[in-house]
Amino acid sequence: MKSRTNEVAAARPSQRRGRAPKTGNGERRFEDIVLIAGELFSERGFNGTSLNDIADAVGVLKGSLYHYISSKEDLLYEVIKVGSEGLAENMRLCDHFASSPAEQLIAFCYGHIVLNAVPDRIHRGIVIIQDAKHLAPDKREQIFAERDAYQAYLRSIISRGIAANIFDAGIDQRISSFTILGVITSYIRWYKPGGPITPHDLARDSAAFVIASLHPQSPGQERFALVDRVVAQIQALQEKAGKD
Amino acid sequence: MKSRTNEVAAARPSQRRGRAPKTGNGERRFEDIVLIAGELFSERGFNGTSLNDIADAVGVLKGSLYHYISSKEDLLYEVIKVGSEGLAENMRLCDHFASSPAEQLIAFCYGHIVLNAVPDRIHRGIVIIQDAKHLAPDKREQIFAERDAYQAYLRSIISRGIAANIFDAGIDQRISSFTILGVITSYIRWYKPGGPITPHDLARDSAAFVIASLHPQSPGQERFALVDRVVAQIQALQEKAGKD
Repeated sequence: MKSRTNEVAAARPSQRRGRAPKTGNGERRFEDIVLIAGELFSERGFNGTSLNDIADAVGVLKGSLYHYISSKEDLLYEVIKVGSEGLAENMRLCDHFASSPAEQLIAFCYGHIVLNAVPDRIHRGIVIIQDAKHLAPDKREQIFAERDAYQAYLRSIISRGIAANIFDAGIDQRISSFTILGVITSYIRWYKPGGPITPHDLARDSAAFVIASLHPQSPGQERFALVDRVVAQIQALQEKAGKD
Repeated sequence: MKSRTNEVAAARPSQRRGRAPKTGNGERRFEDIVLIAGELFSERGFNGTSLNDIADAVGVLKGSLYHYISSKEDLLYEVIKVGSEGLAENMRLCDHFASSPAEQLIAFCYGHIVLNAVPDRIHRGIVIIQDAKHLAPDKREQIFAERDAYQAYLRSIISRGIAANIFDAGIDQRISSFTILGVITSYIRWYKPGGPITPHDLARDSAAFVIASLHPQSPGQERFALVDRVVAQIQALQEKAGKD
């Protein structure tokens, strides 16, 4: 079930704060429920998925779901929240690269994909686009505030890079930030975890694509050297975090 | 109502093939219905929008809609089809640049945005993500086949550019093509026609972003010179088409 396909996520599993019983098995079961709910919501939409469908797919009775949630909306929130945790993790990762806007931009792109193009988070992108409107207003506001903070984090990397004359100022900063988000979230439309392209490959190419556009000092093959240096630092950080 | 915000689309309005009466007014009314249906579907989802909502927003009685369509599904198909016409128009435009992969890639990115980030097509992207599942199977197949042909067109530009040693072969071709689609469709998440950023500005920056990543011979500011040369050719072609 939990066939994680990348080392980074495996080294540092996110802390779930669902209303799961405190036993290890219960928490794992709740993670499975959220994972399966995410798959079904992304395929059929929130309105097209019933709690019965989810219970059937998990292999439990519908009544068992009420140990964990009190409504289908709760489950929608959990699916989207699991994704938001991926954004928070990526910002914590990128804080380590604050002294170099070019390295930090690479870390942001690489980290976003490697932390989010994984089975339990990959559905968030589609679900937030198609079904965020079904969240309760206070939860929707919270999720959108987290998304806005993430976009502001990216814009601050870009503006520091331009102020330091490291990034090409020829592209509008607002357009750039949305274009970069377009690059690093485009996998939600086609990527299947477990296929021939690993999250690392996807993340490395996407980071190289972005850095070439903003940082003309690293054209062609040279950008890959810079990307690979940052990726090695990220992997070292994650290994250290895994040992702590 | 039809406040078109770019010259290209205005110079060459797409030919609608809806089941509208042949009178000019009827066709225009049908275009308005499809436009408003697209807005409502993208905001509330297909399931969250009734034919009554659409009739109210257009300012007609629900019965009048049946002059043009026989079901809400028909209207969903029309909304998505109007978007698919934008893809076909862009491929016809790019055929003029077949002799240069770099120019053709710029034309593809610029043309996609300038032809599609316009009021009557801007909703297609969100609607196809969230609601294509509600199309009848044969129509869904047709729409997906058109989308696949568009992606294949882009991949052929990339592979010809790599074969000719014009594009950097360092990035996986499949990842590249999806990344580029991510760049040129990212506007669907934030762009509002009629705001301070024109479709031309957005399209020009997006084309520059992409070409820098694939074509390291045009780093930094130089890429804008290449982009602007292609844009001038596109505008000349469109002016000529407008006069024919």
